[in-house]
Amino acid sequence: MAIPFDKLVKGVRQGHLRSLARLITRVENREAGWKDAMKTIFPQTGGTVVFGITGAPGAGKSSLTNRIAEGLSKRGFQIGIIAVDPSSPFSGGALLGDRLRMQDIATIDGIFIRSMATRGTLGGLCQGARDVIRILDAFGKDIVLIETVGVGQDEIEVVRAADHVLVVSVPGLGDGIQTLKAGIMEIADLFIVNKADRDGADEVVSDIQAMLEISQEGDESAPPVLKTSAVTGEGIESLVDLLLRLKEEKEAQTRDHAERVKEEILTLMEQELFHRIRSEWAGNGALQDAVDQIGKGKQDPYSVAEDMLSGIESFQLGPISDRKERGGGK
Amino acid sequence: MAIPFDKLVKGVRQGHLRSLARLITRVENREAGWKDAMKTIFPQTGGTVVFGITGAPGAGKSSLTNRIAEGLSKRGFQIGIIAVDPSSPFSGGALLGDRLRMQDIATIDGIFIRSMATRGTLGGLCQGARDVIRILDAFGKDIVLIETVGVGQDEIEVVRAADHVLVVSVPGLGDGIQTLKAGIMEIADLFIVNKADRDGADEVVSDIQAMLEISQEGDESAPPVLKTSAVTGEGIESLVDLLLRLKEEKEAQTRDHAERVKEEILTLMEQELFHRIRSEWAGNGALQDAVDQIGKGKQDPYSVAEDMLSGIESFQLGPISDRKERGGGK
Repeated sequence: MAIPFDKLVKGVRQGHLRSLARLITRVENREAGWKDAMKTIFPQTGGTVVFGITGAPGAGKSSLTNRIAEGLSKRGFQIGIIAVDPSSPFSGGALLGDRLRMQDIATIDGIFIRSMATRGTLGGLCQGARDVIRILDAFGKDIVLIETVGVGQDEIEVVRAADHVLVVSVPGLGDGIQTLKAGIMEIADLFIVNKADRDGADEVVSDIQAMLEISQEGDESAPPVLKTSAVTGEGIESLVDLLLRLKEEKEAQTRDHAERVKEEILTLMEQELFHRIRSEWAGNGALQDAVDQIGKGKQDPYSVAEDMLSGIESFQLGPISDRKERGGGK
Repeated sequence: MAIPFDKLVKGVRQGHLRSLARLITRVENREAGWKDAMKTIFPQTGGTVVFGITGAPGAGKSSLTNRIAEGLSKRGFQIGIIAVDPSSPFSGGALLGDRLRMQDIATIDGIFIRSMATRGTLGGLCQGARDVIRILDAFGKDIVLIETVGVGQDEIEVVRAADHVLVVSVPGLGDGIQTLKAGIMEIADLFIVNKADRDGADEVVSDIQAMLEISQEGDESAPPVLKTSAVTGEGIESLVDLLLRLKEEKEAQTRDHAERVKEEILTLMEQELFHRIRSEWAGNGALQDAVDQIGKGKQDPYSVAEDMLSGIESFQLGPISDRKERGGGK
């Protein structure tokens, strides 16, 4: 029999690693009761600072994340790492994921590493990351690092769950910064030119600075550009210093917090509707009938979708209750 | 005043390029009337074969797509290209997109190139691609090539709108095939090792073949692996031959067609519901109240989303009408 959610939540609060790993898995899988567990956890969260670390494939994000985690850990902070895997929508498993590469720090005390599949988290990658961050937060992690490849749209969304975004570039990657999505440049709080021991690092720094100059508006200050090398250790200490300064500034940076909460509520509503639609239609054959009608040329997908929704006249949206009035986590 | 949709649809059928470009834009932007336009177009579609061309950033997909389009065009086919841009979720524009690189074939008669932003298509990238494919189909394109970077989840979804998927690898990209998402390997109908003029091409071929051997189940035949060079032209003619063979086989490969239609209907329903949710809640302040309550510690996002949906007891899904009974595009 599965351990009840409330036991796992209790275990997480008490700092049990196995409870942590299990709770994350079961919330990711949207097992019955996941939402109540998150409701119970929510009031204990908000203390963790989240750094998103992103960049093109091959930029050395994993090694850099390792180094940052080590550096922060040495200064006494409890660290959680969420590694977003380029995994399969079919097999559900990573082909050659970051898990292997991360092994060397997995044994350091106070660092917890969790891989997340880009597919397979039923709640979607971004909401999945928010949930995992909160669980790590309730567990007592001071800082969470999310490492994700900075190319896909989903991956951009994920870093938006972070308080601060680090964009990692590297010399000699052909098109260089061209392979980064434009959106990533715009949400970066900090640029890192990694593998600075290689030729061409200074050119990448100049390229980024030139691009920042073009895109900077008004008198806002441009994000800093740092050189690091995970191999030689160059720049890592300065980077850790900078991250800790950003951590202290977190409270002041609530600027987009309300927007992020709104977005989360809408996402959760959409996911619930999505779930209801899929379960409503999975078994009843109407969808298959519709496909047949389309095949016979009697219908088109646009009309079918419209017809199917015609029964919902309007959204009778419910009132928002006060959690305290109804006694917490239900 | 904007040109009415029915005029644009008529223009597309008559092969007017400006109507084509405009109709695509207005359907992408989900302007009022877009759905009726698609309903009218739908019965004229189904004749186009769609090839998805995907791979890691830097694999030379754009040049290869150019070469393929040229080759197919020379053999008398009308070609449409959809280039999925790594564009900004903020600015909406590509920073350094494929548009520039594609200029050299944009002037060839019979080739139409369209960039699609990964963000900014309100209908979502995959549905957006389906819509554009249908419009190109109604316009008279025989073959549509969709070029997309093979790293993000959205990008994988896009290639699923294709009938056949070409996965492009390249020697010397560091981690090599590691940067490809595992899911991509599994949906590939054809592997291409591009930049075959470079060292290491044969190793990449062996790597892919080894991986295919591991993952192949039962007696299904492994997808072919071809070497090409967009620079020297090596392998391009054989590739074009192979694509034309796949084109002829299209009719036989309706295996997953029903699943794709089902998925499209569900996607369209979801998008409509999401749209309604967003417009329902945009102006009425309830969302802001909820954010305030969360800020005061009186609520959590999970409960708020649940409460807001509590008014929707069940989905009173409507009956599917017969398009012919109500006289076409309504």
